Amino acid sequence: MEKNIKIVETELGKYISRLEGPDVIKSAMDYSLQAGGKRIRPILLLATIAAFQEEIEKGLAAACSLEMVHTYSLIHDDLPAMDNDDLRRGKPTNHKVYGEAMAILAGDGLLTYSFQVITEDTRLTNEQKVQLVSLLAKMSGPEGMVGGQVADMEGENRKLTLQDLEYIHLNKTGKLLTYSVLAGAIIGGASRSQLEQFDIFARNLGIAFQIRDDILDIEGDQAKMGKPIGSDVTNHKSTYPSLLNMQGAKDKLMAHIQHAKTALNNIEVNTHLLEQMTDLIAVRDN
Amino acid sequence: MEKNIKIVETELGKYISRLEGPDVIKSAMDYSLQAGGKRIRPILLLATIAAFQEEIEKGLAAACSLEMVHTYSLIHDDLPAMDNDDLRRGKPTNHKVYGEAMAILAGDGLLTYSFQVITEDTRLTNEQKVQLVSLLAKMSGPEGMVGGQVADMEGENRKLTLQDLEYIHLNKTGKLLTYSVLAGAIIGGASRSQLEQFDIFARNLGIAFQIRDDILDIEGDQAKMGKPIGSDVTNHKSTYPSLLNMQGAKDKLMAHIQHAKTALNNIEVNTHLLEQMTDLIAVRDN
Repeated sequence: MEKNIKIVETELGKYISRLEGPDVIKSAMDYSLQAGGKRIRPILLLATIAAFQEEIEKGLAAACSLEMVHTYSLIHDDLPAMDNDDLRRGKPTNHKVYGEAMAILAGDGLLTYSFQVITEDTRLTNEQKVQLVSLLAKMSGPEGMVGGQVADMEGENRKLTLQDLEYIHLNKTGKLLTYSVLAGAIIGGASRSQLEQFDIFARNLGIAFQIRDDILDIEGDQAKMGKPIGSDVTNHKSTYPSLLNMQGAKDKLMAHIQHAKTALNNIEVNTHLLEQMTDLIAVRDN
Repeated sequence: MEKNIKIVETELGKYISRLEGPDVIKSAMDYSLQAGGKRIRPILLLATIAAFQEEIEKGLAAACSLEMVHTYSLIHDDLPAMDNDDLRRGKPTNHKVYGEAMAILAGDGLLTYSFQVITEDTRLTNEQKVQLVSLLAKMSGPEGMVGGQVADMEGENRKLTLQDLEYIHLNKTGKLLTYSVLAGAIIGGASRSQLEQFDIFARNLGIAFQIRDDILDIEGDQAKMGKPIGSDVTNHKSTYPSLLNMQGAKDKLMAHIQHAKTALNNIEVNTHLLEQMTDLIAVRDN
């Protein structure tokens, strides 16, 4: 998968350089796209395509489009009016380099371009393009990521119930992760019942991912994480360990990993790579 | 067309109310969508469909989607980091009512939802949906409206050439107006050569619209405009009258109106309504 990350990053650079527009916005968009990160979403998408023995190339546009949406959400989240973060992955955030107005526009530009990238691709059918655009918009808009971000903001500084917490994570991060898998399945040519199992897989994987995040903020190694730990406690954030205690959170993590793997086993394609990724997510240390 | 505006506004309300998401973001999105305005983009879209004797209903999703994109751009333009406007059409701007973070998210939500609305429509074919999403993204993203907004910001406080000014207007406002017409033509089933003529028509109409805007900022009636006039001069903004003097701007306006009408005449469908709208734009007083 290391190789695929490189391919996606090269492709992202090409998508920006071929844009006809003012240099400064291209530079601002590129800055955050190339700022690294785990690239977990494009990898999930490509690994799901691979399960269908389809060529990775068929999913490159969708993988890049997905990373654009994820990146736009980080740029807007970091803004002074939102989380007001100066650093992201050890580098100055977009608005610290380009100013607030340009950061807003770079986010808007990435979000808009992500839909253009899907529809202009020559390897996908019209039916696939419509399915992808529709699902991406639903999963990242007010019924998905944007809705989760709003719920997260509204929940700040009050104690959340487990149900509140689950709603926030399912939407704020879970739905775009789910899209990653479903987009790969759509491109791979999954049947309706396979899509349903992939949906169950991805939802459980998304929650597991978030629980692991919460655990790492307490038990993680600052050096491996690349950021200070303990910020959830400092910020009085409701987390899985704070609501369930540490052992409860770990049990829940393993239960979701198990659900995810069961769903994978119900799909008659080669999901070996996805299974490995699922195991990695349960024990990842950054 | 009064009737069609009402239909679009009712439909916009329905699109928001059927969203499954936090109430506050739905309310913030709805607030700006229902804040009025000339609705010139949906009207252009529907009038172009009407030229093909197609039913207006077929274009309702695209018309609402278009108004969502226009509205998102106004919300983000008004933000403190951008134009820092407290009032829009006589009402407090979105961030004045809902706060800056929510206004950013309401804009993001509207932009994202606009693509969902097109792809979820049941009256359009997959081919039409792909064409519409692709064109809307191109016209409103870094190669269109967002790019124009960036160029406008970069051009502030320096004297622009006519070429700079034209680039800004063609992108910042012109491309979404062009999309309005082309979207209607795509839904109406226009041929390739008809699309080309509609493109010429819309580009000229867009420039004419902007020149008239600049003229009204000098010669307009404050009461009819609903906002103070003379702000371009106060803000040292380069405008058509400032670069060409008033008579030059008026001559250029009429030349573009003429080009627009010539293009319309080259299209063998009933463009009578579009012709009337073109004449109105040349003499509008708000």
